[in-house]
Amino acid sequence: MASIRDHLFDSSFLDQSIAYLAEAHKLAITVLDSDGATVASRRSEGSDTPTSRAYPFSFSSDIGSMVCGAPNPEQLEQAEPHIRYCLSALNSQLMRETELQETTEEMLQLASQMNFLFKVAKQIIGIDDLQKCYQIILEEIAKATKADQGFIQTKGRWDEEICVTHRMSEAEVAASRESSNLQRSAGVSTIICAREDGASLLYSPIKEKDGLSGQMLFIRALGHRAFSASEKQLVAIIENIISPTFETLRLYDSLQDLYLNTVKALAAAIDAKDQYTHGHSFRVAKYAMAIGGELGIDSQQLNDLEIAGYMHDLGKIGISELILGKPGKLTSEEFCLIQQHPVFTDKILQPIKLPPHILEGATQHHERMDGTGYPGGLVGMDISRFGRIIAVADVFDALTSKRPYRDALPVEEALQKLCEGIDTLFDREMILAFIAALQSDRSKEVLGEINMSLRHNDLQNLNHFLVELTEFAMTSKRD
Amino acid sequence: MASIRDHLFDSSFLDQSIAYLAEAHKLAITVLDSDGATVASRRSEGSDTPTSRAYPFSFSSDIGSMVCGAPNPEQLEQAEPHIRYCLSALNSQLMRETELQETTEEMLQLASQMNFLFKVAKQIIGIDDLQKCYQIILEEIAKATKADQGFIQTKGRWDEEICVTHRMSEAEVAASRESSNLQRSAGVSTIICAREDGASLLYSPIKEKDGLSGQMLFIRALGHRAFSASEKQLVAIIENIISPTFETLRLYDSLQDLYLNTVKALAAAIDAKDQYTHGHSFRVAKYAMAIGGELGIDSQQLNDLEIAGYMHDLGKIGISELILGKPGKLTSEEFCLIQQHPVFTDKILQPIKLPPHILEGATQHHERMDGTGYPGGLVGMDISRFGRIIAVADVFDALTSKRPYRDALPVEEALQKLCEGIDTLFDREMILAFIAALQSDRSKEVLGEINMSLRHNDLQNLNHFLVELTEFAMTSKRD
Ligand SMILES: [Fe+2]
Ligand SMILES: [Fe+2]
Repeated sequence: MASIRDHLFDSSFLDQSIAYLAEAHKLAITVLDSDGATVASRRSEGSDTPTSRAYPFSFSSDIGSMVCGAPNPEQLEQAEPHIRYCLSALNSQLMRETELQETTEEMLQLASQMNFLFKVAKQIIGIDDLQKCYQIILEEIAKATKADQGFIQTKGRWDEEICVTHRMSEAEVAASRESSNLQRSAGVSTIICAREDGASLLYSPIKEKDGLSGQMLFIRALGHRAFSASEKQLVAIIENIISPTFETLRLYDSLQDLYLNTVKALAAAIDAKDQYTHGHSFRVAKYAMAIGGELGIDSQQLNDLEIAGYMHDLGKIGISELILGKPGKLTSEEFCLIQQHPVFTDKILQPIKLPPHILEGATQHHERMDGTGYPGGLVGMDISRFGRIIAVADVFDALTSKRPYRDALPVEEALQKLCEGIDTLFDREMILAFIAALQSDRSKEVLGEINMSLRHNDLQNLNHFLVELTEFAMTSKRD
Repeated sequence: MASIRDHLFDSSFLDQSIAYLAEAHKLAITVLDSDGATVASRRSEGSDTPTSRAYPFSFSSDIGSMVCGAPNPEQLEQAEPHIRYCLSALNSQLMRETELQETTEEMLQLASQMNFLFKVAKQIIGIDDLQKCYQIILEEIAKATKADQGFIQTKGRWDEEICVTHRMSEAEVAASRESSNLQRSAGVSTIICAREDGASLLYSPIKEKDGLSGQMLFIRALGHRAFSASEKQLVAIIENIISPTFETLRLYDSLQDLYLNTVKALAAAIDAKDQYTHGHSFRVAKYAMAIGGELGIDSQQLNDLEIAGYMHDLGKIGISELILGKPGKLTSEEFCLIQQHPVFTDKILQPIKLPPHILEGATQHHERMDGTGYPGGLVGMDISRFGRIIAVADVFDALTSKRPYRDALPVEEALQKLCEGIDTLFDREMILAFIAALQSDRSKEVLGEINMSLRHNDLQNLNHFLVELTEFAMTSKRD
């Protein structure tokens, strides 16, 4: 229950007031809080107080009273105007203190919201992955609102649904979204409501330019206190201020996907000019990503590597399909022209502000470690990382694909051939990574359907072979 | 000068206090502010006050005093403890009121900053043009801080410098950036300083993930008050909270440029397969944009139209250069195959999530208004807007380019031929827009160098011709 102590933060004026009444008016003063406990008391020396009267503090609800005692009724009567003045001074101060307290709380709350915004903004700066961005925001809000569970469901690239969760299973997300209490109250603003089981729900729709793009939900389990108005406000603020970033990230993510797929589609069209290279760029990109994944390069770099893979034979646009698809032996002139395709790729892509590692990856796939490659005759580490990766991927696909003059080689034989070129033609690191990728579970995902069409012995034998090959590749001497 | 009135917002307790002293203690009270003016006064009826004494309010600096008068010194002496108590009650209230005032101000300021953030975030939501986004933020800050001038200089796509200004010339921007006072004090945080001429400068660096990406400067001319701490805080907050959006927009803008240029480069490579179509896609894209610009379509749509222009002959990847570049007459089979190129374009682009208007623009450029086109035989408005635009651009470029069997036609003749196809082959709106574009100043920019290589009579004659042609095109009857 509220007492005068909860309202009066600085009691020195109260002390001063009762001292004044005791001394100047010879009274005995006791300040009681609302439940009758003594807060303070004062009496002038030696005075007797058979007569007394209580003066309640008039501030808002019952918060206590001042009991004034005097030796006789006349003296109390005489002191009355002074007591009244004291009371009004105390009441006036109580009112100010309460206002101050409320305003301070409001201000601190705003300041902490602003700080929270700063903290979140700082964390998502430079992050170009939509899912990661949402996860950060989800975790930060969950921490700030002390939510037990939570999720953000919204539109990702191409308006596909994205859902990030905080300590929730998919089933729990679905169940929470269907809470009938929530369904009834959810609109276009942030709300707090109770789930049927009594848990507290804090719900916020996510807005975009014209309408809603998703929702956030935070849950505090039954037994904990319900979400507060200030927690609700925090979520509403975050939603309002951060949504332009979400919107832009969504556009960026969609465009990234469009870029990748456009390059992929064009590469497929170029590959299709020659029946023997059908699907080549697609497979090279996948093999290269398998190697890159094994090397632990990050998702943005993997994306770039995929693009470089699709682009590596673009220069073939400039070469007649009569030469590209010629069944017999090429003349040395024709061979020369074919060897020009990385130069054509470079010419096509040079005017574009493509990140250099993508361009190098695309144009250096025929370079070899010992400098016998083309078009630059680059040696060893002068060949870019992407170039060394794509070289392995390109040759592996060439070997495992049918040619006019030979059948497709089985995986084992192709890998054997690659291993023979360790250090001389290919980077050992990339060969090892590729073999490791073929052994890993991840490869099943990355290589997926391609793997199915490759010729190899039964899987158990292949795995055994890969283990042995790794041994060989690790120990084979540099020439 | 500060007076008690500036500190005491609610004077009712002051009135109550002096009434109490006047009535209960038979005094004459006058409250004076720091410059001696009377704020309030009260005296008990009929009392004479030859004796008086001033009691200054002890709150902070000199803010005024209470002068108490009595009929004789003894009475004043007797009232002394009561006066002292009153004074301390008033001082106590003054202190609370001042604190409350300061806290309220601080809170209101935070709330208005938060509101400002909301307002700016709402405005930039869904805007994907970096320059426009910066301009909005610049104008909003200038308005909020009542700055006379301002600029934001930062990195745009590919880290190129972007500079948006508010009532400033380029020279003024350069001069302000070189202000030696600014140079001395500018660091990594937001500051206020004075320019040599006395103008007030509010400067803020713009941060990105690892370092600084630019700066903002706001100027308040000499004669106006200097920027305040709260204005400085506002700018710092905006910079902190909005920068993730900037960062993402920059990435998005760069990728948009990369996409456009990649498609352009690939289209150029495909065009280059046939000496007669060298540069064709580039020119078609430019002509299409000139028409689109004349129709007033927005910059995002113009960008899409440009992409559709580059993509319109992509399907030629799938057609042998022997047929494409065949000098003599084509067999009907060969002609059929060539007519398939929009179908190939569609096949290549179909798997991509390309916006439908781009895909339609690229694949419908051989459709004709009367349904005699290919591959769909679409009629009139069933042909997409982009398709009708690119059709005109495509035919104009074909007519004004050299062919194995004829020389390039002069502009006048090509336009004449287009006009003859109004309603039957081409959309009148697009023809008119194209002629208007050729007459406009804007066309010099858009068509630029292409124009130079076109054959036409001297410019004055061309303009005269275009005016006449417009007349003709507007009145020609539908068949
Ligand atoms: Fe190649
Ligand atoms: Fe065409």
